[in-house]
Amino acid sequence: MLVDATSLKDALVSRHQTISCAESLTGGAVAAALSAPAGASAVFVGGVVSYATAVKRSLLGVTAESVVSAECAEQMAAGVRSLLGSDWAVSTTGVAGPDLQDGQPVGTVFVGLSGPSGTSSVRLALAGDRAGIRAAAVEGALEALAGVVTTDG
Amino acid sequence: MLVDATSLKDALVSRHQTISCAESLTGGAVAAALSAPAGASAVFVGGVVSYATAVKRSLLGVTAESVVSAECAEQMAAGVRSLLGSDWAVSTTGVAGPDLQDGQPVGTVFVGLSGPSGTSSVRLALAGDRAGIRAAAVEGALEALAGVVTTDG
Repeated sequence: MLVDATSLKDALVSRHQTISCAESLTGGAVAAALSAPAGASAVFVGGVVSYATAVKRSLLGVTAESVVSAECAEQMAAGVRSLLGSDWAVSTTGVAGPDLQDGQPVGTVFVGLSGPSGTSSVRLALAGDRAGIRAAAVEGALEALAGVVTTDG
Repeated sequence: MLVDATSLKDALVSRHQTISCAESLTGGAVAAALSAPAGASAVFVGGVVSYATAVKRSLLGVTAESVVSAECAEQMAAGVRSLLGSDWAVSTTGVAGPDLQDGQPVGTVFVGLSGPSGTSSVRLALAGDRAGIRAAAVEGALEALAGVVTTDG
């Protein structure tokens, strides 16, 4: 991957900060990347794979009408950060395909970021098949996270 | 992988049953496998990556003294099944390395299974490096799950 999970882990270790994640279309692959490096437990608290809409609402407090939205991504990130008590949180929601969702085209992805300075989101329009879109969404989430952690942490 | 996640999904679809997961050492990779097939949302509700011990206790109700134990794996599976309201749940906990944990050697893994007929666990002793042990634990979890779903569902 372009963003090295070990470098991200090292950046968090040096800042004495922790990370969690909430995932929809990536289905656990962001968490798997964050937990991959040896010593990940020093910074990675855990995550919620809120694949069903009901889980987004019950566990993460999502109220956004559409789950394919910037608002949903931000609520997922803020929700898991609060639920698991981490310094930072990253989230993914969007359409991996093969079908449209909430009228949004396949490849529409929102990455949410929540941290000490607040919550934000990034919109991605990804091309590819289901597996390719999921992989690109993981990469986009790690890139966005590395960007805020290293500038804002 | 040896166990095809699409076949597992199809078996659950034909039984009108749902699945969730709770993961420690696999860090989200079981959820990523369960959510990989197109149409996974028909059966995969979501999961909890309870990497930190505190998350196992607060979110999944784990009371086991050691998190590297059959008891912990069973409590994780039963806990996430109840939390997310799925028919089935699978869990993983154990030692991916590079260091020992709770006095247990690297490669010691427990897979928990919870379903309509009750809760059980399987102990695995895996060889390899950290990435290899994580991958083999995912495979072991899917195999154990396929075994109970197709015989017990």
